Amino acid sequence: TTYKLLLLPGDGIGPETMGEVKKVLGWFNARGTASFETEEDLVGGCAYDAHGKAISDEAMDRAMASDAVLFGAVGGPKWDGVPYDVRPEAGLLRLRKDMELFANLRPAICYPALADASSLKRDVIEGLDILILRELTGGVYFGEPKEITELGNGQKRAVDTQVYETYEIDRIARAAFELARTRRGKVTSMEKRNVMKSGVLWNEVVSQAHADGYQDVELEHMLADAGGMQLVRWPKQFDVIVTDNLFGDMLSDVAAMLTGSLGMLPSASLGAPDPETGKRKALYEPVHGSAPDIAGKGAANPIAMIASFAMCLRYSFGLVEEADLLEKAISSTLDKGLRTSDIAGKGESAIGTSAMGDAIVAELDAL
Amino acid sequence: TTYKLLLLPGDGIGPETMGEVKKVLGWFNARGTASFETEEDLVGGCAYDAHGKAISDEAMDRAMASDAVLFGAVGGPKWDGVPYDVRPEAGLLRLRKDMELFANLRPAICYPALADASSLKRDVIEGLDILILRELTGGVYFGEPKEITELGNGQKRAVDTQVYETYEIDRIARAAFELARTRRGKVTSMEKRNVMKSGVLWNEVVSQAHADGYQDVELEHMLADAGGMQLVRWPKQFDVIVTDNLFGDMLSDVAAMLTGSLGMLPSASLGAPDPETGKRKALYEPVHGSAPDIAGKGAANPIAMIASFAMCLRYSFGLVEEADLLEKAISSTLDKGLRTSDIAGKGESAIGTSAMGDAIVAELDAL
Ligand SMILES: CC(C)[C@H](C(=O)O)[C@@H](O)C(=O)O
Ligand SMILES: CC(C)[C@H](C(=O)O)[C@@H](O)C(=O)O
Repeated sequence: TTYKLLLLPGDGIGPETMGEVKKVLGWFNARGTASFETEEDLVGGCAYDAHGKAISDEAMDRAMASDAVLFGAVGGPKWDGVPYDVRPEAGLLRLRKDMELFANLRPAICYPALADASSLKRDVIEGLDILILRELTGGVYFGEPKEITELGNGQKRAVDTQVYETYEIDRIARAAFELARTRRGKVTSMEKRNVMKSGVLWNEVVSQAHADGYQDVELEHMLADAGGMQLVRWPKQFDVIVTDNLFGDMLSDVAAMLTGSLGMLPSASLGAPDPETGKRKALYEPVHGSAPDIAGKGAANPIAMIASFAMCLRYSFGLVEEADLLEKAISSTLDKGLRTSDIAGKGESAIGTSAMGDAIVAELDAL
Repeated sequence: TTYKLLLLPGDGIGPETMGEVKKVLGWFNARGTASFETEEDLVGGCAYDAHGKAISDEAMDRAMASDAVLFGAVGGPKWDGVPYDVRPEAGLLRLRKDMELFANLRPAICYPALADASSLKRDVIEGLDILILRELTGGVYFGEPKEITELGNGQKRAVDTQVYETYEIDRIARAAFELARTRRGKVTSMEKRNVMKSGVLWNEVVSQAHADGYQDVELEHMLADAGGMQLVRWPKQFDVIVTDNLFGDMLSDVAAMLTGSLGMLPSASLGAPDPETGKRKALYEPVHGSAPDIAGKGAANPIAMIASFAMCLRYSFGLVEEADLLEKAISSTLDKGLRTSDIAGKGESAIGTSAMGDAIVAELDAL
């Protein structure tokens, strides 16, 4: 089988880290179990520079036609002043919305070799393996009205609207229960039902989905602010956390930082399976951002981007063995003591982006 | 001078912790530098049980007429099923809104004696002293529409509305700059301007207020998700963090948990100074909640509630010396090794709520 991948490296360190994925793709193509065809296009600030939009319609068409999109990162100080509708992030948000990628999987894993890189105590995060499932196409990110109006006298009013409908909550809840079944069988749903009506509905629909056929999975409800606290206090109490778009943005970033492995964490954004073909649209991206401060220096950690491709192998193509192999190559490379500067401890020397990519490919050869 | 305090112990551990504040009040009354008159009323679940509302109009009138309100905690599983409009939290939200308490000060301090109680490494949090200034009367907490509508076919739509006007952002920004001047001179403003129009306006108005007369203070802007990460990575980079109601709820809870001192952290919610008298309405409450699991057992930590009264002495009455004295009594008590169970380390024995209150009063006698 030949799979069609669209590569969107984006801005900042995106192109450098994507360069290392290309090496990995080359390795899998040479191995021959599956073959990958790639196209490449612009997104974010570089797309704005090229044609005044954060993603062109042509690039969107290519994304829709692809089997999966690999996405680097967008944004940087260069584009701080551009109009809101064409800011770099708009490219990413359009991809999520138009491809209907409602389920965002963000694993927060503590790599054993890196347990000491965390600001948390070793026993709090050693062995941590939780999954944040973030709703990605609804909530305050896309609700209307979303506008700033002039009130006169120099006063303005800004409005954003948090909207959730039953079906949106139901499908993400079911996805959470399905995922929990392949893991430790526990789902924690987080919202602010004590303040938000969307939290009341969220709570109700998640409970209903649970009662409708997932009673083998343990379901727990937690207020989102208490959830943030509990993530810091004892993150290992969680298995799958399911939450809305904005809480998911906050909580997944906190969870990622807990692990000490921010430069290592991938994510998958998935649509619903097509009723006929069973295929689902998908986009894979690192949790970290475009890191403009180190862009172009060959210092970025490519592991999150490479691990995002491992998620692609697993979730889009069912190539479980290949995904396992690639994840194993990453952890062996770390076990050997190889570090980019973001994860190098005191006294440890660091290698660059390209050397890390090469080391992972060499590990693939050796395994 | 006689100050009029309204005590609203509320639910769960609220009455127990408020009991210890009464001892402290007794001590200050006996000392005679200032005298405090107290009234007491119901709020939260107990108010609902008594008269079907989370706060009665009479209690609201008393709050408005008081010099300051001391508030315990509200809520618990007993009231999980009560209608949204009369749920326990509605009492607290009405107090905040009707008293126009727009500025919520949440210090996150790591008590030296407790540095090891944190899940974070000692060097990350030792000596931590940051202040989260949360906007408390606007945003998604109070914006309209806030409703659930039936769409037919079992589908519902829930809507919450995030609204900010220029004046609301301007006054909290100025409060942040004023507070930073009394501290280390740095303000970090957090929003999601890359996704929310309210974030765009927030960013613009904070920058404008800064340019208008606070250029001696350092101003930094950070996206709220990155802010959550940075709080976990290296919280000491911050001095004052200013943010909106919902982000403030999340970020202050994360910050509180970082310190390992959750049961110790007070907060102050302040209104604008009256143009004639200079007095500002105020409410003081612990950051922790009603902790129904330990309520009634005499095990709760009363320090956050007592420290909230110290903030009251400082911010409402300008009794700086008395506030310092009370804070000193708290830390001496801790230095002596006295611990309630929430802050007792492995192998340390714990005392109860009342013994901790007594110890602090004894310390006041001794100082
Ligand atoms: C870049 C930004 C729009 C995005 C978000 O807020 O969703 C990012 O923070 C993320 O978490 O993927
Ligand atoms: C009890 C609840 C309404 C409240 C809030 O969300 O503001 C609490 O979490 C807080 O932070 O004071």
